[in-house]
Amino acid sequence: MIREVEVPEIVVRRLPIYVRALAQLEAQGVKTISSQELGRHIGVTAAQIRKDLSYFGEFGKQGRGYEVSHLLGEIKRILGLTRVWPMVVVGAGRLGQAIASYDGFKPRGFEVVGVFDNDPAKIGQPIGSLVIQDISELPVVLRAHNVKIGIVAVPAPEAQKVANLMVEAGIRAILNYAPTALHVPKGVRVEDIDPVVILQSMTYYLVSSEALDPVTKASQGAPGA
Amino acid sequence: MIREVEVPEIVVRRLPIYVRALAQLEAQGVKTISSQELGRHIGVTAAQIRKDLSYFGEFGKQGRGYEVSHLLGEIKRILGLTRVWPMVVVGAGRLGQAIASYDGFKPRGFEVVGVFDNDPAKIGQPIGSLVIQDISELPVVLRAHNVKIGIVAVPAPEAQKVANLMVEAGIRAILNYAPTALHVPKGVRVEDIDPVVILQSMTYYLVSSEALDPVTKASQGAPGA
Repeated sequence: MIREVEVPEIVVRRLPIYVRALAQLEAQGVKTISSQELGRHIGVTAAQIRKDLSYFGEFGKQGRGYEVSHLLGEIKRILGLTRVWPMVVVGAGRLGQAIASYDGFKPRGFEVVGVFDNDPAKIGQPIGSLVIQDISELPVVLRAHNVKIGIVAVPAPEAQKVANLMVEAGIRAILNYAPTALHVPKGVRVEDIDPVVILQSMTYYLVSSEALDPVTKASQGAPGA
Repeated sequence: MIREVEVPEIVVRRLPIYVRALAQLEAQGVKTISSQELGRHIGVTAAQIRKDLSYFGEFGKQGRGYEVSHLLGEIKRILGLTRVWPMVVVGAGRLGQAIASYDGFKPRGFEVVGVFDNDPAKIGQPIGSLVIQDISELPVVLRAHNVKIGIVAVPAPEAQKVANLMVEAGIRAILNYAPTALHVPKGVRVEDIDPVVILQSMTYYLVSSEALDPVTKASQGAPGA
């Protein structure tokens, strides 16, 4: 694998979008695609795609575009998606249950192998093929399955404690659904999913476009859009 | 409101994180905070905070830091969070139901005013204080509540059709939970929430750190972390 230069994080973040688009194209029977066409699917320029991929080598043939299956396989290899990654979910409320039973993980390289809570009323209840376990069993399950990825789905005030438990037990990547910032040691990655944070950045543009023109027109672009 | 220069999108995306942190600090009774301390909470540098806020004016007093309530109020005003934004959810499967009944929206400025599906078995069923409505009623509800924000929670193959319906009926901002790219006209914003895309960027760093050292040490930083 070519990794002579450090790949910018923004490029790493785009690669899964390429994977998603290429997998859809492959499922539609598309064999080859130009960078223009792929860019149109994803919403980036052809130049951006060529530049992003150039960090990892040569994937396209001059004038013939990319071979969809080959490029998909290469990017999946770069992202470590040639295996299935086991994950645990801590927090078995409505959100945790929706995450634990989400059927979109497995086809894309992830599998929830354990769901944990500290509520005696929840422990022992089934979620799909799993059973909610006591949080005290977390370290054993993490070791048994060599789990590196944890999903935090507890209320904000509990989240840091859960993250600490996870990190102590060997988790190296946390997907955090709790609406609070987590602090983790170097070498552990955290990504937040907080829909309100995303909504609040969109309202900025909604009010900006109102300020420009009280009668909002469908054809008018928001500033910065 | 000072908006003489265009504010970079990355800054707009950080402001809601400031709001979240400042609201937590306010709830804890913190009155003033230095940029260093606020940065520590959020995970950015003090310089970054000062630079981000400088787009909008002067908020701190030299040597005294920021007044938490005042700064919170100002950023909320900038982001358009002095009102409650009505939203609709289309798709009343497990995810749509979890979104529609999420109690974290209202305290932070958003309210789901309608949930829609096209499944006769779901239409008429209650979700919290709402009742699942036929998708054909979407335009009427959007107009009645002057809704500008729509949440897409349908399977990927249905998502573009739903987005088109929303845009036709006046939606200007879409939060897309379907794992596919949506195409919308200029002036409409789309933000995706796809947990797999985020997980797949984290596995890149997990395999990178494995490649560097097969015996992963807790104290070791992943490259680019």
